[in-house]
Amino acid sequence: MATSTTEPASTTAVDLDELGQQLRVDSVRCTEAAGAGHATSAMSAADLMAVLLAKHLRYDFDAPEHPGNDHLVLSKGHAAPVLYAMYRAAGAISDAELLSYRSHGSRMEGHPTPRAPWVDVATGSLGQGFPIGVGLAEAIARLEQGSPRVWVLCGDSELAEGSMWEAFEHAGSAGLANLTLLVDVNRLGQVVPTRHGWDTSAYADRIGAFGWQVVEIDGHDTAQIDDALRTATDSDKPTAIIARTVKGKGAASVADQEGAHGKPLPDSAQAVEELGGKRDIRVDVAEPLPTSSVSTGNAGLALPSYEVGSEQATRTVYGSTLVALGHARPDVIGLDGEVGNSTRAEYFGAEFPERYLQCYISEQQMTAAAVGLQVRGWTPYLATFAAFLTRAYDFFRMAAVSRADLRVAGSHAGVEIGMDGPSQMGLEDLALFRTIAGSTVLYPCDGNQAAHLTANMVDVDGICYIRTTRGGTPVIYPSDEEFPIGGSKVLRSAAADSVTIVAAGVTLHEALTAADRLAEHGVSARVIDLYSIKPVDTATLQQAAADTGRILTVEDHWPQGGLGEAVAEAFADGTAPPRLRKLAVNAMPASATPREQLHDAGIDAEAIAAAARQLAG
Amino acid sequence: MATSTTEPASTTAVDLDELGQQLRVDSVRCTEAAGAGHATSAMSAADLMAVLLAKHLRYDFDAPEHPGNDHLVLSKGHAAPVLYAMYRAAGAISDAELLSYRSHGSRMEGHPTPRAPWVDVATGSLGQGFPIGVGLAEAIARLEQGSPRVWVLCGDSELAEGSMWEAFEHAGSAGLANLTLLVDVNRLGQVVPTRHGWDTSAYADRIGAFGWQVVEIDGHDTAQIDDALRTATDSDKPTAIIARTVKGKGAASVADQEGAHGKPLPDSAQAVEELGGKRDIRVDVAEPLPTSSVSTGNAGLALPSYEVGSEQATRTVYGSTLVALGHARPDVIGLDGEVGNSTRAEYFGAEFPERYLQCYISEQQMTAAAVGLQVRGWTPYLATFAAFLTRAYDFFRMAAVSRADLRVAGSHAGVEIGMDGPSQMGLEDLALFRTIAGSTVLYPCDGNQAAHLTANMVDVDGICYIRTTRGGTPVIYPSDEEFPIGGSKVLRSAAADSVTIVAAGVTLHEALTAADRLAEHGVSARVIDLYSIKPVDTATLQQAAADTGRILTVEDHWPQGGLGEAVAEAFADGTAPPRLRKLAVNAMPASATPREQLHDAGIDAEAIAAAARQLAG
Repeated sequence: MATSTTEPASTTAVDLDELGQQLRVDSVRCTEAAGAGHATSAMSAADLMAVLLAKHLRYDFDAPEHPGNDHLVLSKGHAAPVLYAMYRAAGAISDAELLSYRSHGSRMEGHPTPRAPWVDVATGSLGQGFPIGVGLAEAIARLEQGSPRVWVLCGDSELAEGSMWEAFEHAGSAGLANLTLLVDVNRLGQVVPTRHGWDTSAYADRIGAFGWQVVEIDGHDTAQIDDALRTATDSDKPTAIIARTVKGKGAASVADQEGAHGKPLPDSAQAVEELGGKRDIRVDVAEPLPTSSVSTGNAGLALPSYEVGSEQATRTVYGSTLVALGHARPDVIGLDGEVGNSTRAEYFGAEFPERYLQCYISEQQMTAAAVGLQVRGWTPYLATFAAFLTRAYDFFRMAAVSRADLRVAGSHAGVEIGMDGPSQMGLEDLALFRTIAGSTVLYPCDGNQAAHLTANMVDVDGICYIRTTRGGTPVIYPSDEEFPIGGSKVLRSAAADSVTIVAAGVTLHEALTAADRLAEHGVSARVIDLYSIKPVDTATLQQAAADTGRILTVEDHWPQGGLGEAVAEAFADGTAPPRLRKLAVNAMPASATPREQLHDAGIDAEAIAAAARQLAG
Repeated sequence: MATSTTEPASTTAVDLDELGQQLRVDSVRCTEAAGAGHATSAMSAADLMAVLLAKHLRYDFDAPEHPGNDHLVLSKGHAAPVLYAMYRAAGAISDAELLSYRSHGSRMEGHPTPRAPWVDVATGSLGQGFPIGVGLAEAIARLEQGSPRVWVLCGDSELAEGSMWEAFEHAGSAGLANLTLLVDVNRLGQVVPTRHGWDTSAYADRIGAFGWQVVEIDGHDTAQIDDALRTATDSDKPTAIIARTVKGKGAASVADQEGAHGKPLPDSAQAVEELGGKRDIRVDVAEPLPTSSVSTGNAGLALPSYEVGSEQATRTVYGSTLVALGHARPDVIGLDGEVGNSTRAEYFGAEFPERYLQCYISEQQMTAAAVGLQVRGWTPYLATFAAFLTRAYDFFRMAAVSRADLRVAGSHAGVEIGMDGPSQMGLEDLALFRTIAGSTVLYPCDGNQAAHLTANMVDVDGICYIRTTRGGTPVIYPSDEEFPIGGSKVLRSAAADSVTIVAAGVTLHEALTAADRLAEHGVSARVIDLYSIKPVDTATLQQAAADTGRILTVEDHWPQGGLGEAVAEAFADGTAPPRLRKLAVNAMPASATPREQLHDAGIDAEAIAAAARQLAG
């Protein structure tokens, strides 16, 4: 089949077995060129991908943003070589680019990322691509009533991740017939054989119990694969194709051998020959059907507003503002982890039931669904307790690699929640979200600020987090005050200031009380509301340092990674820093009232005033 | 049944239905006293718990540390009132202590924590108690060949968490016959009905497919409950008892009503009457069988040692040191997330297969198993890629609430890993583990340091994390050097020092090279190896600040929460800080060689030297 041209020539009737061999050969070639990579994991999936590409996928490789394109998610991201071999077969990349796999500057990264325009989401942390695929399928089926299909390739090892079963449950219950999962059962993990080896019935029983159509096939029989993919397309349920395959298929040196994971073949040139040599088959992939994009039209936003002096819980304002956003923007979607009456996301659900996704208590699936939604052009806001967002941290980490735009709300922050105790307290959320690449972290202290910040999030790139408070706090800002991201508010300031107190959220109100008490004792304290924890308002903090020489930070959070360290970051550029002191939660809390909690943690007005007096000297 | 005494009187033959009513009444009473709490979620489980307590549990409430005690894990931690009601029925707490539920200083916290001595592990983040129970059951069955049984109560909502299915797979495959899960199918979640309502067969099908014995019962029929618990005890498989129950059972105002979650009853006094009034039944719980404790005898540790000037990967040293620890300490257990050839945990597995737990690719279950193991007195070391530890972050967070002692190794830290790309790079691990309450964070730069630190972890309280490096680094310390936790090493120091460079791990070697280049340009730089990121060596850093006035930090990590902010923490006590500048990874990396990665991120010797010269002025 080898031709004289280097680039694939267009072919109308593809020999599927030959195409499978080409994908295998190209996987061997690019890993050999890189001197690294997962050749054998790509080879097991080659026939599955060949049949999908040539006969079932609808995709315009010249227009990766086309809304009618199917989605192919490589949940077993380490099998990237087979994906890049598909790109070459589709004419999307050159042979030279294929062979640039893993090299400096190449779009063909070690694991797929959207730096290659045909990759919707980064994979490589196992158990994430499939849940994201469920989100894509639900967006298309439920929100768009669209025709594109979602195809996900996963490994058998990957089924040990609990997130896969959140996804099976969600897709099975939602009846996502446009979703097909191809399970590449090659029997061998990274180090040891999988639990179930080639017992495909073990997987079929489990997945079938979750309401899926299940088909067991020989993953190297292209006719069986074709039939299975057709069965999937014709079903009214999501379909899992459990394909028995051979890891390193076609190369005697590695086929079905332990110890051959994650490296080039020991005899690549010989293996290419054994596989019939380099081929240049070009596949004309089926065109997508005409489809319109998600509308993001803006109907004008009517923010809720609150009277200065009244009391509001910022979590409640989050819910009300989400409703306002829903009226203004038809692309806004609310996601709930079955705590919508706590986060107030349920307000949105009551107003826009068709744009409200109930994810039940599965924070990983909720986050993955949001990643899928934004791929389709929707604007997701997801919410649960700040403490329980930690459950999905790896998904947020990977969402940043995916260049995803997510709006995330964590309610019930800090010891302020009171009696429920430490399991329910978000005390590390600021640190976790600050550390996400390219993130934004917001922490409002009153109703009008919470409304503006919730609205400001809507067009922020990257992972944008807002921390809300359980209890009510007094409204201190007028409703027309603006709160740009990256800003802060200087609430008390005088020439005589001898110390600056920086706080946000619940501690901001404690700081204001402390400043009043300090004034009674003749100490003039500047007070800064640091509502934007990241990016941080370096200019205002440096000015306060220059003016007062001393900064006290106060936060309802563990001492690490939060507001105090965000303030320190403003002085990590080599400029002369002020004296700094940090008040934060240092000991494990227990049950108590909110007021007792703030007192015990040493972050109430009394503690702030004492620390500020000491720091001011 | 009400008697005149306030405290329960001992009873030999308990009326199980009456005991169930007592647990319900006490749940209503304590939530009423607190003015908060989850009464209805406790009431649905009362009959299950009554039969377990009176007829199947073996437990000495006077000796909660007795190794022969069964374990009862309340995976639905919000149902704490029923647990505390059991304590009262067993004579472990007084009526007054029951009624102190959720109040300041009480051991009866809003969600169970080990401040109550009968609580093994904190719960309240759903989907964690059951996986920990699997770890307990495996420790007893496989490591101890012991007789205690493990009983776990979970909710139906909780089955949406993927971690539950990791646990089902692990326990089913391991055949943990000593494990029983009681599923309280009360149909109602926090906000909405569950996906499957009272369709207990939906759960039975799913759980049964994972190799479990499954029994479906009426969860308010004490005879059926008794039979089911006996069936569980007699089985050679783990058993799930799927119990159809009524949330708020027995009180007409709330029974099977939506909107009644997480609060006291609207008519507590009337409900107590409806339930037959307060009772004082005292249960004589069956005694545990004689059982010996896990031995932690120390046979003398022979650490691996490396020649100065040779090259070692710290991950490899971690593996070798774990083997040495295994010889010295029979209580050390290795846990692997199916990447043992990468983390080198497999060295331990080869030497001590009976003390090596393969958890496959399920980081949440691996972490939960480790929490269970340490409850039983074992000393677990768990390892995976630093990046994939993020998957289990909520489990580490809760492990701190459980006062668990865990030793955790994260390999493949930073951009240094090279070609595999950002999905595989641990770039937030220092921030995540620093932020855990009471944690320790270590980051060795060479073989002998890695050996000492891996060994030093063994008796550290709390969550102790060590970060290891993929590639080799030169050995710079002699093998008899000591590395106390909380210390650092000053590697270059002179009176003329005009700047201090603080680094650790891979960047330490870059810092040393940079110092050499700076010396050639007449700049004398102090170099500190900050191998203990938390606790941080405040004294040495403050001395460096006093001596040089300028500190440059360099880390292979995102800028937030890592080494740079740990150094800033040394100056957060109000003392005069130095000028600080931070070098860290600022942009999303792609595939490249390790050397290209360090260069692109601006954390190699060249970038350090340039920044240090600028900072030194």
